[in-house]
Amino acid sequence: MLVVSAHAADFVWRSGGTIAKYIKHGAEVHVVVLSFGVRGESNDLWKEENQTVENVKKIRLEESSKAAEILGVKNIEYWDFEDYPMEITRGRLDRLAQKIRETRPDIILTHDKKDGLNPDHDAVRNYVFQSSIMSNSAGVITPGFPVTKQMMLFGFEPHQTEISDFKPGTFIDITETYEQKVEAMKCFKAQGHLIEYYTQRAFMRGNHARRLSGVKEYKYAESFSNFFPRVASEF
Amino acid sequence: MLVVSAHAADFVWRSGGTIAKYIKHGAEVHVVVLSFGVRGESNDLWKEENQTVENVKKIRLEESSKAAEILGVKNIEYWDFEDYPMEITRGRLDRLAQKIRETRPDIILTHDKKDGLNPDHDAVRNYVFQSSIMSNSAGVITPGFPVTKQMMLFGFEPHQTEISDFKPGTFIDITETYEQKVEAMKCFKAQGHLIEYYTQRAFMRGNHARRLSGVKEYKYAESFSNFFPRVASEF
Amino acid sequence: MLVVSAHAADFVWRSGGTIAKYIKHGAEVHVVVLSFGVRGESNDLWKEENQTVENVKKIRLEESSKAAEILGVKNIEYWDFEDYPMEITRGRLDRLAQKIRETRPDIILTHDKKDGLNPDHDAVRNYVFQSSIMSNSAGVITPGFPVTKQMMLFGFEPHQTEISDFKPGTFIDITETYEQKVEAMKCFKAQGHLIEYYTQRAFMRGNHARRLSGVKEYKYAESFSNFFPRVASEF
Amino acid sequence: MLVVSAHAADFVWRSGGTIAKYIKHGAEVHVVVLSFGVRGESNDLWKEENQTVENVKKIRLEESSKAAEILGVKNIEYWDFEDYPMEITRGRLDRLAQKIRETRPDIILTHDKKDGLNPDHDAVRNYVFQSSIMSNSAGVITPGFPVTKQMMLFGFEPHQTEISDFKPGTFIDITETYEQKVEAMKCFKAQGHLIEYYTQRAFMRGNHARRLSGVKEYKYAESFSNFFPRVASEF
Amino acid sequence: MLVVSAHAADFVWRSGGTIAKYIKHGAEVHVVVLSFGVRGESNDLWKEENQTVENVKKIRLEESSKAAEILGVKNIEYWDFEDYPMEITRGRLDRLAQKIRETRPDIILTHDKKDGLNPDHDAVRNYVFQSSIMSNSAGVITPGFPVTKQMMLFGFEPHQTEISDFKPGTFIDITETYEQKVEAMKCFKAQGHLIEYYTQRAFMRGNHARRLSGVKEYKYAESFSNFFPRVASEF
Amino acid sequence: MLVVSAHAADFVWRSGGTIAKYIKHGAEVHVVVLSFGVRGESNDLWKEENQTVENVKKIRLEESSKAAEILGVKNIEYWDFEDYPMEITRGRLDRLAQKIRETRPDIILTHDKKDGLNPDHDAVRNYVFQSSIMSNSAGVITPGFPVTKQMMLFGFEPHQTEISDFKPGTFIDITETYEQKVEAMKCFKAQGHLIEYYTQRAFMRGNHARRLSGVKEYKYAESFSNFFPRVASEF
Repeated sequence: MLVVSAHAADFVWRSGGTIAKYIKHGAEVHVVVLSFGVRGESNDLWKEENQTVENVKKIRLEESSKAAEILGVKNIEYWDFEDYPMEITRGRLDRLAQKIRETRPDIILTHDKKDGLNPDHDAVRNYVFQSSIMSNSAGVITPGFPVTKQMMLFGFEPHQTEISDFKPGTFIDITETYEQKVEAMKCFKAQGHLIEYYTQRAFMRGNHARRLSGVKEYKYAESFSNFFPRVASEF
Repeated sequence: MLVVSAHAADFVWRSGGTIAKYIKHGAEVHVVVLSFGVRGESNDLWKEENQTVENVKKIRLEESSKAAEILGVKNIEYWDFEDYPMEITRGRLDRLAQKIRETRPDIILTHDKKDGLNPDHDAVRNYVFQSSIMSNSAGVITPGFPVTKQMMLFGFEPHQTEISDFKPGTFIDITETYEQKVEAMKCFKAQGHLIEYYTQRAFMRGNHARRLSGVKEYKYAESFSNFFPRVASEF
Repeated sequence: MLVVSAHAADFVWRSGGTIAKYIKHGAEVHVVVLSFGVRGESNDLWKEENQTVENVKKIRLEESSKAAEILGVKNIEYWDFEDYPMEITRGRLDRLAQKIRETRPDIILTHDKKDGLNPDHDAVRNYVFQSSIMSNSAGVITPGFPVTKQMMLFGFEPHQTEISDFKPGTFIDITETYEQKVEAMKCFKAQGHLIEYYTQRAFMRGNHARRLSGVKEYKYAESFSNFFPRVASEF
Repeated sequence: MLVVSAHAADFVWRSGGTIAKYIKHGAEVHVVVLSFGVRGESNDLWKEENQTVENVKKIRLEESSKAAEILGVKNIEYWDFEDYPMEITRGRLDRLAQKIRETRPDIILTHDKKDGLNPDHDAVRNYVFQSSIMSNSAGVITPGFPVTKQMMLFGFEPHQTEISDFKPGTFIDITETYEQKVEAMKCFKAQGHLIEYYTQRAFMRGNHARRLSGVKEYKYAESFSNFFPRVASEF
Repeated sequence: MLVVSAHAADFVWRSGGTIAKYIKHGAEVHVVVLSFGVRGESNDLWKEENQTVENVKKIRLEESSKAAEILGVKNIEYWDFEDYPMEITRGRLDRLAQKIRETRPDIILTHDKKDGLNPDHDAVRNYVFQSSIMSNSAGVITPGFPVTKQMMLFGFEPHQTEISDFKPGTFIDITETYEQKVEAMKCFKAQGHLIEYYTQRAFMRGNHARRLSGVKEYKYAESFSNFFPRVASEF
Repeated sequence: MLVVSAHAADFVWRSGGTIAKYIKHGAEVHVVVLSFGVRGESNDLWKEENQTVENVKKIRLEESSKAAEILGVKNIEYWDFEDYPMEITRGRLDRLAQKIRETRPDIILTHDKKDGLNPDHDAVRNYVFQSSIMSNSAGVITPGFPVTKQMMLFGFEPHQTEISDFKPGTFIDITETYEQKVEAMKCFKAQGHLIEYYTQRAFMRGNHARRLSGVKEYKYAESFSNFFPRVASEF
């Protein structure tokens, strides 16, 4: 599994329970954090006088690394792009395509196609999608890393789902790693108001998961959009 | 699995491979055919002079029964509603809700929410959806048949997908039962022009399934819409 | 051409220029007016004290007949359904299917699938669509009137297009019959406020038609939704 | 304000804070509860042995009345329709049109156009919309109750918003009546699992309201869809 | 209020009445005109032989300035971007974010997300949206101009609304400034064919506004899309 | 007619029958192939060891030229952009705008607005659309090539239509040039798996065309999306 996160905390709010669960069950999970969210996702830190970009980065790196550790993530990279806006260049497309070929994921998790309040998230969705297509094309040459075959892609929940045209395609039960996710979220002191928000979101999605499946054991869940239809041997 | 088919042949064109596969793998599959399609789906038969409703019904029943047999279906009922239009009454809702409670399916297959050329299919989708909700509600009393829990529902492909706003949500590989499906389709002499059409459709969906999954062994497939998001322990 | 109008004036506001043009060029045009719009489309008449249903019907019939005459319509029928709500029964479906077989139109004009302010219009769209499908099915028997082949269907512009999800699919140039349409609209004294409105609408659609086609001669136009894709030998 | 609720508790879960606020500020609020939700919304009550329809109705009436009292509602009617399915007849359309004319609301709150899990809610939305159009039409005669002018209509949040295509059009701040709403919700012991759910929903919508408006004082909110665009003298 | 206009006349056609009304009622309105529309919106001027870019700019500046004066606009800037295509760079994003912080608007009016015939308009919508998000983020530093809180954003009507997926979210009554708008539009001799068009549009939107609100005094109106749901203390 | 093809074979798979038909009937058809599809559309060629970009280009050029010849295309240009990703610059916009003015097409065929598996196709759609708007604007100066008037634009079918939100707007009967199309497709040995796929697609679209039109002579067809509504003197 490869997780591509626009800012330092997105992978935790949006998929922390799923990441922890996959790791717990033995999967190899790689996380790429594209930016520290210095400009757009660190409002509380900028309330301190004499705050600097370097200091914000340092704090965000610490918070994010600690959260990753709690989730059990061993492979995490910080690519340190500037955010707000997040610019996607040809070189960055190539870099991510190569990263996909290195990690050869069966599943990629990243942002969904529209976030009604966060244009960086839209840019990252297009970025990951394009690089995944490049990774799967034999004519895109990355010496040492052979072409991949089509993997599954899923989209994170944005903060306000309805105005972002988000449609849940898959609910993943995270009951067994819910506590880990809550602990990991608590690392992000710069976005403290979000901890309760995403804790309740897990409860809400658990309610939905039970109602849609009839399985009472699903207490907490995360939901994701499907980039593609599911292809399977049975339903 | 419960399959609800508006007319005598819909379950074969749209889900014959999937039905045969589930049966082959040991599932209990029930098919309810709501009408013989006398008025709307038997155009070729009406070209014969002195054709009668009774005779068309007889032929359609024979064709449909034989196709079901080829697919391995043991439980099939013909409810003999009139088609074009197909009217859904309170009594019919109750009857289907009870049938769902009798058969207790994990999966229901039926028509999708819109068919750009066939209003009966839309009516059946709403019918099945409403009855499934009734079946899952404790206050709807059907003595002897206890309430069900939420099952999964999937929608058939309509004939012209794009003008019907059909979105494939799940592709099921039917490579192992493709030959059975082709044999079953050949029973419907009243709709002979559709045999080649749905044979090619299985090839096309197989191509899509391979492309979306990277699994080369998927040669033939059927696709279905998802009524609900998928809820699962993992992707 | 067959035109099915929910109320007494719809066929004039929404397609009067097109009807007049087809007649002028030799087409046989049949109009079915389903209701007089007594309850829902005659607000001004009900301002008079002691107004009665019979009198409103009489006035609406006179206005509508006169407008039809101005457009050159020779074949018009008033089916006198009650409006608000407009109820579609099995018998009414059969009646319209038979009417379609009698008139054998190449083109049917009627209401579009959604009117954000007028539920009768939605009901009529479904009514006409269902009856057209029945008319095209060999198993629906109407002695003396053989089955039809698929005709083209187009949808009228509703009053407020954007909130009705109306998408123009075809613009018809009505420059040569614009004056006739204006004259016909003037017959509807019960809806006087609409005359200027639909006069300006013809101007606006003429502007759109010119801009989309580059043809400067298109001064006035009517627009319609396409029920189906266009099928043709060339674009 | 007129609130039309499909089942006994819908008006509380979905608009309790807004109702209480309007009443607190002096508005006259009328509530019509169409059914007791005996069949579809009382699952917990049916777990008791020897439960009867009459008893369930009695309990639901008590719960609902008590909740209404807590919200300050003085005008509430129970029309006792059967639910699951909820059938809308011509007579019921007339009855509600007359009720609208009696109460002459500036605002109607009711269900939104689609609920992915509850077909009754869809039926009620269409019911209220049609009756409101009838109420506004001079030709629909209800002796003693004159025609109304167009009022505003807003749609409740369904339980699972994204699969119901719900788009919030308006957020109403309910901070000042949040406690009242929580108390009112606690009356519904038959649906105890929903109390925490809708308490958290108010928190989530408060978060959204703050983010979208920049007003920090908005702590709790309810959201509604807009049936129509807003028309105003200024933004 | 801040108005961001892609070309020299857009702010007049699309929001002239609203601008004049806000100014009349004491609001501070700032207008930023991004380009003179030399390449894409000055077709009539290019019919003159020996026309030059400089001369077209000069004429467009004169027309636009005069129209602004008629509307009462005191704060207008011309940023002189090239149009067709309009390119949005990092520097331009920063510049507009800073402008938003300087003017601190409660409301931003600009183009809507899609114009079926004018790609510049789409680009400007994205430009304004992104810069507004940057302006509201504490980590985006513009010395001397502190961070803003979330303002409201509304989208202009495009020329052909239906093919541009435009949905009116708010109608503003402009009856009291309609005459001013008409006078202002008359300044644009290079686009003379649009004057009658947008005069009639105000009439049409006035009709819609009356119908949707029941307020007879609304004679002329402008409509706008809502970028976000409305957040308010009451409906 | 001008056809703009992202890669070397797109114009054949997606519009070969229509191109051949127009040429057969005397039209002047120009084809611009933007890239050879070296990186994204030549997977089979890259299976050979020691393959080089130059060699792939050479093979693709040969295949594409031969296919064009079979279709009767006399005017074809290869612009040799790199693919995966396909970058659209200001200079490239100008170049295509000038090409449109040189060829002055009544019809432009190119990719549709979204391809769920091929971001190059989306980029090309935007590219062609923008350049066509520039070509139609008098202020965009291309010495020697005067401004064009609005032409019709149509979109190719993508490979997987439903996940690409493709809506057929027009079906063109290609029965008379079907054999030519099949021959032309056989040239593309690098994409051999697509030949059967697009052969069957022509059969499927022929079935749809017959069903929608009632014209039995339509055996094979191609479908296209409509960029704009149709504007015409009659339906």
